[in-house]
Amino acid sequence: MRRVNYGTVGIVGLGLIGGSVGLRLREAGVASRVIGFDTSEEARRTALSRGCVDRTFETLNRLADADILVIAVPPNSVVPCLVDADVFCKVNCIVTDTSSVKAHIVHWTETYPLSFGPRFVGGHPMAGAEKGGPDNARPDLFEGRAWILTPIEKTDRGALEAIKSLVASLGANPIVLSPEEHDRHAAVLSHLPHALAGLLAQLGSNLVHPEAAGPSWHDLTRVAGSDPELWAGIFRTNRAQVVSALEDLEYLLTELKRAVDADQHQALVEFFENSRIAKAGWER
Amino acid sequence: MRRVNYGTVGIVGLGLIGGSVGLRLREAGVASRVIGFDTSEEARRTALSRGCVDRTFETLNRLADADILVIAVPPNSVVPCLVDADVFCKVNCIVTDTSSVKAHIVHWTETYPLSFGPRFVGGHPMAGAEKGGPDNARPDLFEGRAWILTPIEKTDRGALEAIKSLVASLGANPIVLSPEEHDRHAAVLSHLPHALAGLLAQLGSNLVHPEAAGPSWHDLTRVAGSDPELWAGIFRTNRAQVVSALEDLEYLLTELKRAVDADQHQALVEFFENSRIAKAGWER
Repeated sequence: MRRVNYGTVGIVGLGLIGGSVGLRLREAGVASRVIGFDTSEEARRTALSRGCVDRTFETLNRLADADILVIAVPPNSVVPCLVDADVFCKVNCIVTDTSSVKAHIVHWTETYPLSFGPRFVGGHPMAGAEKGGPDNARPDLFEGRAWILTPIEKTDRGALEAIKSLVASLGANPIVLSPEEHDRHAAVLSHLPHALAGLLAQLGSNLVHPEAAGPSWHDLTRVAGSDPELWAGIFRTNRAQVVSALEDLEYLLTELKRAVDADQHQALVEFFENSRIAKAGWER
Repeated sequence: MRRVNYGTVGIVGLGLIGGSVGLRLREAGVASRVIGFDTSEEARRTALSRGCVDRTFETLNRLADADILVIAVPPNSVVPCLVDADVFCKVNCIVTDTSSVKAHIVHWTETYPLSFGPRFVGGHPMAGAEKGGPDNARPDLFEGRAWILTPIEKTDRGALEAIKSLVASLGANPIVLSPEEHDRHAAVLSHLPHALAGLLAQLGSNLVHPEAAGPSWHDLTRVAGSDPELWAGIFRTNRAQVVSALEDLEYLLTELKRAVDADQHQALVEFFENSRIAKAGWER
């Protein structure tokens, strides 16, 4: 059987995601070399000492040897990073990112003349943790998780297959969606939960004994502690889809409030039955 | 040191809560006898075979020997159960319930001439599990959880102390609140999370790949599978407080939606910062 070899993998951004990608690649032994760049010296040091990378560099252009470049920076920094990478990367370099918002990045690559344009494959691992940074990187962070890929018409099929394979090597399940469909999924499946966790947490803080909460409360507010700057950026970048998801939620919420207020037994039973059926649907 | 002895404890309703109370009491050896009643033959059989009780009975009045009666039935059944118990219970019997809504029950006991009126202590363990029934009962269900008690002016102090001690024997932390304050806490800390889990689940079921969801989604929708009849009943019984909590949520949600729609960076950062601060507040 042919042994998979991703050559030299360059990781831009040595945080939770970038660090975990490196850890897993090195553990699996599927790359000849894993090299990394981060603007933070501390992140570089931690990533190196934790074994996320073979070597780190202080400037992005030192990743010029990369056969695959994984851009694992916050959503707003992806585009500047792609422009920088375009200056130095090899003629056959395949590039992917891990940003949680896709349409604005992918559509930008359609108009800007990137040398690796057809070899850019937008991606988003549906994984994460409450605490970020390379300290919290784990080789099994992506195990069993979906990793959405958003190729477009001009995307090179070979590049897509290579990234699909890379993602599978990281333990994730690749799912192909259009950039817009991805952003709608992300708004409902990830951005809305973060909004609701925050809203609930704020409502709870008005109580005398918020510590009286049971397990359902802790489940629903766990992600309320996420990084404010990062999440403000994510919401802004996925503005249209987030607003649309919040509107859908508002509509259902008002309906539910009416049913409670009007003491409609049957409507309430149906609400909880529909919830149960919905949940059972994706747990099949 | 004096050894605590709750005498004969009678449990009405051998579900998840009643079953777990019995399991823990028998494990701790703090009751001379634990006897139970349930209208369902299957629940009685399961509770007995799992060791939740020493003996079960087919009629409620066979619990006449109880020194402490724990009413662990759905919110709407508590009042009829108290009326029935009043016919047979001993002159010094202390009665408590575990219903998730308190004001309507406690205020009913103020007007109805129950013989054990002053010895009734409303209670609510802030614990639970996705799956109910005596099959899922666990002796550690209440470990480290809050158990809210809602005495009123006429409540006998000795009875309150006895139930506080009982609750602590079950591993829980007793917290005393007025019935109204309890219901407000329950609406925000428990009923709202169940509403939101259901709303999110329903929004997710419209997606092509809901299985792409990451950990935050699974956290927020875990309780969406709860029993529809039970939860419709809980919402109806705590109607005013649930409506008020849903209104507060609606208000914050509309504010957040406006900030996203208007692309207000600072307002979004503040939203996530306030969420983080709120969460840190009760985790102190």
